[in-house]
Amino acid sequence: MIRIALISTGGTIEKTYDELSGVLANKVSVLDVMLASLELRGVEIVRAHLMNKDSLEMTPEDHTLIAETATRAARENAGVVIVHGTDRLAVSGERIVELGTPASPIVLTGAMRPYELRSTDALQNLTEALLAVQLLPAGVYVAMHNQVLQFPGVRKDPARGTFVKDGAR
Amino acid sequence: MIRIALISTGGTIEKTYDELSGVLANKVSVLDVMLASLELRGVEIVRAHLMNKDSLEMTPEDHTLIAETATRAARENAGVVIVHGTDRLAVSGERIVELGTPASPIVLTGAMRPYELRSTDALQNLTEALLAVQLLPAGVYVAMHNQVLQFPGVRKDPARGTFVKDGAR
Amino acid sequence: MIRIALISTGGTIEKTYDELSGVLANKVSVLDVMLASLELRGVEIVRAHLMNKDSLEMTPEDHTLIAETATRAARENAGVVIVHGTDRLAVSGERIVELGTPASPIVLTGAMRPYELRSTDALQNLTEALLAVQLLPAGVYVAMHNQVLQFPGVRKDPARGTFVKDGAR
Amino acid sequence: MIRIALISTGGTIEKTYDELSGVLANKVSVLDVMLASLELRGVEIVRAHLMNKDSLEMTPEDHTLIAETATRAARENAGVVIVHGTDRLAVSGERIVELGTPASPIVLTGAMRPYELRSTDALQNLTEALLAVQLLPAGVYVAMHNQVLQFPGVRKDPARGTFVKDGAR
Repeated sequence: MIRIALISTGGTIEKTYDELSGVLANKVSVLDVMLASLELRGVEIVRAHLMNKDSLEMTPEDHTLIAETATRAARENAGVVIVHGTDRLAVSGERIVELGTPASPIVLTGAMRPYELRSTDALQNLTEALLAVQLLPAGVYVAMHNQVLQFPGVRKDPARGTFVKDGAR
Repeated sequence: MIRIALISTGGTIEKTYDELSGVLANKVSVLDVMLASLELRGVEIVRAHLMNKDSLEMTPEDHTLIAETATRAARENAGVVIVHGTDRLAVSGERIVELGTPASPIVLTGAMRPYELRSTDALQNLTEALLAVQLLPAGVYVAMHNQVLQFPGVRKDPARGTFVKDGAR
Repeated sequence: MIRIALISTGGTIEKTYDELSGVLANKVSVLDVMLASLELRGVEIVRAHLMNKDSLEMTPEDHTLIAETATRAARENAGVVIVHGTDRLAVSGERIVELGTPASPIVLTGAMRPYELRSTDALQNLTEALLAVQLLPAGVYVAMHNQVLQFPGVRKDPARGTFVKDGAR
Repeated sequence: MIRIALISTGGTIEKTYDELSGVLANKVSVLDVMLASLELRGVEIVRAHLMNKDSLEMTPEDHTLIAETATRAARENAGVVIVHGTDRLAVSGERIVELGTPASPIVLTGAMRPYELRSTDALQNLTEALLAVQLLPAGVYVAMHNQVLQFPGVRKDPARGTFVKDGAR
């Protein structure tokens, strides 16, 4: 059993539907529901709920807090997964890299479509992050849409709705 | 085989998720997807796409158009089902009643949670409307959440997220 | 609120998957899970778990027990829904008719594909039965696949996977 | 883009439900449906449909055919994923190892519950295999239930419904 820290910060992946207002918002964490729907035989997960924000609303202090929390968790665990809004995911990723190579792999992930939707990439991406963190060497990565990219130099491609390496198409 | 007219006007039931903007909106009709997921042996469905609006944005002219279209369809078919936003569903229902008892039953329905959500009342309500329209006498009704209420005198109870008869708790 | 008795007898609708043997069987009732996933504002449901059998394994005594239980429940409630395997559903339906017109409507339903499947008619059929029982006059019916047929003279059409009236195509 | 060969051999993961007989069987491949539900940005998948068998019915010749096909595909692609029944998955895994270290990673996977079920580990396991094959060095592995184990010395633990390394609890 490998001990993994799972840090939740919010983002589309965790948005839930409010019947009264009719909008999707970051109110409660659905990560526990997602985790319960997966068969997790390889890892022991330590949950840390850091914040629950649409990443477009994150301040520089938020990114720094995420980076410092993840770097510390990487020393105390065999790996770290961060659930993050995709719009500013790369900002947090680069911030972690600035703090130096972490003691164990840190894998960021998110989703383009909330878990609450019938059709969603949330479970796929969480599954990938939880597996990638077991196989990768120490470093900072995003795992999503069946690909793993290493920071620095990763950015969101809004038109394609996924992440790419700088210089890549 | 009973021929039923199915008139779509939009509302929560048909809202879909736009990945780029991250909001649920009335863009395309998901009614065909819903219909394809049901076993419909008793009815032949004639689809009429009238509008695709959040009912909070409906004008008086919209309600009148819906009422006139439904009343005419009730003469030409064995029954009519209208898919409608719940916020102003009762306005359209009362408007139909003002036009006189229809030639066949007219059943309005909608949903509190879009079909696109993993947990939704959309399929249940559509199923109920398509069955109720076969069993009810001519008149104007809402079928939703396992109950059928007859107009006039029906209103949405926003706190409970469902419909009630005037005077009912 | 209308009080409805819901009598479960088993059948495909309630079959669950056993990982070790790899087969679908009638072991536990999934009716409670189905009921929890519906919005039921119109009815108060009184559950009666009579048996949990593939209807192909029902004995004449089983059909008589089902008929007598349903007829008695029809006196004590505003209606009765029976969840039943489709292969012998019509046998129980005819047996109830032999006991005379019930005091309130009795609606049988079932499914061609278990609720446990990703694609299933179970929820649709249960939804229909729970609505039809509120709208129909006293009598014995099957509600399934968006149609309601009245006993006597109903039989399963195995080739089409649904129910038809005798004499119908 | 990494080119991956995806070899399907059947097993629980691909079982579908036959309404007429009421059993789950390996009739058609549902792999294409599963693949269509995933966002696959990192890989180009080359499909090879080798057989569609419950692995309990595999002959020694079947295991040899699977091993030889996978070893050859490992030379022609950047990695190989094999979808396989879990009961005899380890037999095929060991057979591949006997043919020598493959030219690229070969990852076997399967499921305890068919994709057709509402609750299934099929998509999770396929997701994991498709990601692991991109990250692992050449060798033979099983990826399932959020863990990756390397052959030789892997076996199914039927009581726990998952795979373990020999010597492990």
